[in-house]
Amino acid sequence: MALIVQKYGGTSVGTIDRIRNVADRVIRTKRNGNDVVVVVSAMAGKTDELINLAHEITPTPDPREMDVLLSTGEQVSIALLAMALKEKGVEARSYLGGQAGIVTDDAFGKARIQSIVSDAIRKDLMEGKVVVVAGFQGVDEQNNITTLGRGGSDTTAVALAAELKADACEIYTDVDGVFTTDPNVYYKARKIRRISYDEMLEMSSMGAKVLQIRSVEFAKKYSVVLHVRSSFTDEPGTIVCQEDKEMEKVLVSGVTYNKNEAKVTIKQLPDRPGIAAQVFSKIADANIVVDMIIQTPSAEENHANLAFTVPITDYDQTLKITQKIASDLGAGEVVGNKDISKVSIIGVGMRSHTNVASKMFASLANEGINIMMISTSEIKISCLIDARYTELAVRALHDAFELDKPPSEESL
Amino acid sequence: MALIVQKYGGTSVGTIDRIRNVADRVIRTKRNGNDVVVVVSAMAGKTDELINLAHEITPTPDPREMDVLLSTGEQVSIALLAMALKEKGVEARSYLGGQAGIVTDDAFGKARIQSIVSDAIRKDLMEGKVVVVAGFQGVDEQNNITTLGRGGSDTTAVALAAELKADACEIYTDVDGVFTTDPNVYYKARKIRRISYDEMLEMSSMGAKVLQIRSVEFAKKYSVVLHVRSSFTDEPGTIVCQEDKEMEKVLVSGVTYNKNEAKVTIKQLPDRPGIAAQVFSKIADANIVVDMIIQTPSAEENHANLAFTVPITDYDQTLKITQKIASDLGAGEVVGNKDISKVSIIGVGMRSHTNVASKMFASLANEGINIMMISTSEIKISCLIDARYTELAVRALHDAFELDKPPSEESL
Repeated sequence: MALIVQKYGGTSVGTIDRIRNVADRVIRTKRNGNDVVVVVSAMAGKTDELINLAHEITPTPDPREMDVLLSTGEQVSIALLAMALKEKGVEARSYLGGQAGIVTDDAFGKARIQSIVSDAIRKDLMEGKVVVVAGFQGVDEQNNITTLGRGGSDTTAVALAAELKADACEIYTDVDGVFTTDPNVYYKARKIRRISYDEMLEMSSMGAKVLQIRSVEFAKKYSVVLHVRSSFTDEPGTIVCQEDKEMEKVLVSGVTYNKNEAKVTIKQLPDRPGIAAQVFSKIADANIVVDMIIQTPSAEENHANLAFTVPITDYDQTLKITQKIASDLGAGEVVGNKDISKVSIIGVGMRSHTNVASKMFASLANEGINIMMISTSEIKISCLIDARYTELAVRALHDAFELDKPPSEESL
Repeated sequence: MALIVQKYGGTSVGTIDRIRNVADRVIRTKRNGNDVVVVVSAMAGKTDELINLAHEITPTPDPREMDVLLSTGEQVSIALLAMALKEKGVEARSYLGGQAGIVTDDAFGKARIQSIVSDAIRKDLMEGKVVVVAGFQGVDEQNNITTLGRGGSDTTAVALAAELKADACEIYTDVDGVFTTDPNVYYKARKIRRISYDEMLEMSSMGAKVLQIRSVEFAKKYSVVLHVRSSFTDEPGTIVCQEDKEMEKVLVSGVTYNKNEAKVTIKQLPDRPGIAAQVFSKIADANIVVDMIIQTPSAEENHANLAFTVPITDYDQTLKITQKIASDLGAGEVVGNKDISKVSIIGVGMRSHTNVASKMFASLANEGINIMMISTSEIKISCLIDARYTELAVRALHDAFELDKPPSEESL
């Protein structure tokens, strides 16, 4: 008998009919001879509704009370799903995060799971019950309710799968899996059959919003194999797992883009040792995360232009801070640009293959797209470009690396 | 420094603005030098909304899961009120029933409080925090969420007041207090300044829906003085407390009516010992509670007519059961009547005064109202009448006992 953890996102439990469908799928899995632990999110729209209620009271709700409020969303879902399962004749029991033994730190709103005491769940599974757990939540050591942040239900599922040594962890969502690029941008986007944790991490952090980053880190750490798939079909989705030899044969697994950054340039910055550190420490002090950085010589001798990108939500604040620094350091003007986009190619195969970067640059050049900045990691190359060329760049790169063709092992 | 428990019902926290008003009232109480524990219900309409969700899944939701679902209503309220208090600069902390140490039996949907471990609350009060507790809920010994039934937040407030030895327990609602009769029926209805627990129990059970019966029983048992008042004004409401000499001087404190019963009559029942027991044991087996009973001789010798009342919601089932019994026992026809009403006068003064009953019957007779049945207790006399005369009867009795005039001690 296998143990399967299934996680259903907000869209998958968004209506009573969909909750019934989830119950049916759980029951099929159960009747196929498996033990089932189900993790559910709040019904679609519910969390935003609760956030709006809080914001009617104050723009800065108390974090502890916010978690008390938000955790009700998942609580409603587990009760309704357990009722639906029982109505269909299957024994089931709902668990709040705390009841499931999920203990976190006390960082309200972005808590991290520290331990899981799964005795109660194991007992119910032994008795043949389906266990329904509220995603996204836990309790700290003082029994305060905590939440894990957006997408936290994925992490709940992975953590439970790791703790219970589950045979599979299925993440049900409203898309069919992980694609080579955004299907809304390029119709040739292809569902990836298998992807490594590291590639998935790069895909997630670049804005492919299928899985919460932390849940992938968790899965990697505990070697939990994830199956990301749609709750609306029976098609297999994407397996996220350890890297293997077959994966390395593929140069590039996916193309992503991110329009949520903005660029800031300080011109004519006196070029002396430690000056970049001075600039970036002031920005870090404001809790703003800098992504790409490039320094180029400026026209005046011993001066440089320093450009970098930040999340677009921090753009206004960054401009203010940077203007102050520039003035303090005797630099020139500060120029901002919100109409930029970061296009990236991702693939573990890059490690062992050369010329991937040059092929990327050439593809963009062929389309007349100017590259403003470049950043690279072992398995990713990103280029900052003018936002208006985003879709063109994505399509060009998808074609250049022939991502519409399944890798050889997929045809087996 | 006094400790005050305040309970706010669903209407009092029905909108964000009203939650802000509650916060203001709590803060005034706090700034007057009191410690404050606030118990809140779900926002008005919320509980019904959750019940409807469950009923979309099944007409008979699992009771344990129903409590998991319903308890979210109060959870939302405590989070929002605690946020509102903090936003206004007052330290506050929300408590779920379980966090407040409220342990109940495991009768889901109608659980009874068994104990309260109030250490955490006491500690917060010592530190000057306002404590905000979710009404209506607790946990059983296995840490399952339980709810106390409709109006259960009143019981939570009274139980906390008893446990914490509070100096006052204020029940805020959307009416100004307890009235001598329903102000919608008679404009001369007067707010009662002080009423005894026993009178209040009779008023509640007769359908004056101001306080949950169980909370009054609890208050009586632990001598918790209740102050029932409106959250929309600063007017004093009604004090519910131990009976005293002044109260006994008042013949009648209130007139109530109840249109939610129906009458069933078995004609020509063979009149032999034990036959009534046979009838009522069958009805009790179906969990139907019989209220008034009257047996009268019928035309045929050694036969009687047996009439009784049951809740109108059990009427159809009662008719079926009774018809079966009548046929088994060789009785005559069974006649039902839903157009009846029970009018009652209540007052601890009845114990020591005579002629209260005869005055009641005479008042009804003067209006040409026929009395079908009578039942009495130490402090209550009820008459079953034709439903169409309900309002007429209430007004006649209110006038006969001069309930519009405040008792002498109230003019002090």
